[in-house]
Amino acid sequence: MTPNILFAARPEQWDIYENPLKSALSEAGITANLALDLPPEEVDYMIYAPNSAVQDFTPYTRLKAVLNLWAGVENIVGNQTLKVPLARMVDHGLTQGMVEWVTGHVLRHHLGMDAHILGQDGVWRKTIPPLAEDRPVTVLGLGVLGQACAKALRGLGFPVTGWSRSPREVSDIACLSGDDGLLKALQSAEILVLLLPLTAETENLLNAERLALLPEGAMIVNPGRGPLIDDDALLAALDAGHIGHATLDVFRVEPLPPAHPYWAHPRVTVTPHIASETRAITAARVIIENVQRGEAGEPFLHLVDRSKGY
Amino acid sequence: MTPNILFAARPEQWDIYENPLKSALSEAGITANLALDLPPEEVDYMIYAPNSAVQDFTPYTRLKAVLNLWAGVENIVGNQTLKVPLARMVDHGLTQGMVEWVTGHVLRHHLGMDAHILGQDGVWRKTIPPLAEDRPVTVLGLGVLGQACAKALRGLGFPVTGWSRSPREVSDIACLSGDDGLLKALQSAEILVLLLPLTAETENLLNAERLALLPEGAMIVNPGRGPLIDDDALLAALDAGHIGHATLDVFRVEPLPPAHPYWAHPRVTVTPHIASETRAITAARVIIENVQRGEAGEPFLHLVDRSKGY
Repeated sequence: MTPNILFAARPEQWDIYENPLKSALSEAGITANLALDLPPEEVDYMIYAPNSAVQDFTPYTRLKAVLNLWAGVENIVGNQTLKVPLARMVDHGLTQGMVEWVTGHVLRHHLGMDAHILGQDGVWRKTIPPLAEDRPVTVLGLGVLGQACAKALRGLGFPVTGWSRSPREVSDIACLSGDDGLLKALQSAEILVLLLPLTAETENLLNAERLALLPEGAMIVNPGRGPLIDDDALLAALDAGHIGHATLDVFRVEPLPPAHPYWAHPRVTVTPHIASETRAITAARVIIENVQRGEAGEPFLHLVDRSKGY
Repeated sequence: MTPNILFAARPEQWDIYENPLKSALSEAGITANLALDLPPEEVDYMIYAPNSAVQDFTPYTRLKAVLNLWAGVENIVGNQTLKVPLARMVDHGLTQGMVEWVTGHVLRHHLGMDAHILGQDGVWRKTIPPLAEDRPVTVLGLGVLGQACAKALRGLGFPVTGWSRSPREVSDIACLSGDDGLLKALQSAEILVLLLPLTAETENLLNAERLALLPEGAMIVNPGRGPLIDDDALLAALDAGHIGHATLDVFRVEPLPPAHPYWAHPRVTVTPHIASETRAITAARVIIENVQRGEAGEPFLHLVDRSKGY
């Protein structure tokens, strides 16, 4: 049977994904009916993004799986009408892009690049940073993205501590977990990278109390989710100089409004949610691999555990 | 016999090196007479920097080796009074620091960080760079530093081409050599890293003709030696927009004079010769390892080939 695949992400995404998806189907040797509009009761697979017009899954009576184009699933995971497997995007391009962005900004802070980029005034400011081996970095979150970033940073010589809610083991990374582990992970973090999923437990995880645990002058890099940080607490810690700098890629409201104090703060660098973007060619292959698995009766890859929320 | 080791680098370096050298001697189990002043005819080893007051080696009649604190030897290699083995500094800290600086600045250019660091004006400029795997980088020079940087960049996913005057093989790096190889290495270089030694052949290697071979918008990172670049040709190529940006850490005259056009050029980032600095603790161990080898009658490490000039 020819499966029916509904492209239920926003229609403007169709222009970006139509050809990559058709190529990936053809590469996989699958004949399918891929469309922007199909009768709900005939849809086998739904290619989805949480900002889709589809929010009630009840009419999709023969749906086998929802295949998300995004890594983040917090706006869909609690949807009670969704009863079938939900797969997140775990895309080589997404992970690799994140590793490049995180590694680049950690090195930028480690090397003190901004003093030179912003200080082209003829003054020869020769200060030598420590080696990476003397710069402890902590990565909060040891999912696919967190692990990949932790390994890349370790590969460059940084001593890396990783923290996750439940215990994990990652070779060559000092892994901590639980509440006590979090205290320890923060206390040593000269550079802190946030790559946690957003759940009820992680919202405002970085509050005033936890910011105070970081070493004086610590630098924060957040490519994870905006609400992981208590914004007012961070601004206060930056004003006090306790936090040396924050590079923030994600925010509660995006685009970040021009009047938001982050834009004007001299210790904050705002980047426009670019740390990790799904690249259509690689993402389409991931989506179609799951269609292929569904058709072959094999287990889907990258499934969300809805009891945990991620 | 207790060897006599003369510390012949500038006296102000003594404050930095005295304790690390004594620790390294003690770690190596060597009893030696380490001093700032010794009768020339009694010196066995000389710890040296090319800006030393010692420029005539003739009186040092029993000298076994000159152990340089710097990686660069162009100001000493032609000294006709120096007849004994000359070792350059090849220090873990020196190499690791260079890898960090080069990797950081290559990622900075790759990710287009400056647009955000310099553009905190409330405008959400969402442009997504290609993945590193689609950003060809060329490293000119495949000595210890060039190889280490090439490998680190390859490890992050960049396709890396390496070029050296004589053929070299480095695993997973596309190695080119000779004049024809240089043309090819430049033509593909979206980011070009200069890590060549300075010799008569490499002075002004990057001239107008070779700059023109680089792809439109190419970015140049020079942590090697200032005279590798024809400065006027580079300024012209930057003005024309053919070269997108140059990050320069080394110059013909250092500190770079405040009136030099590089400081004010919007497409140039000047950094104050910080890409690679000898760290005293690791450097002292390298120096003393060679003393230990000399005393044991073993070949010295990191010898300069004076026929080649590096």
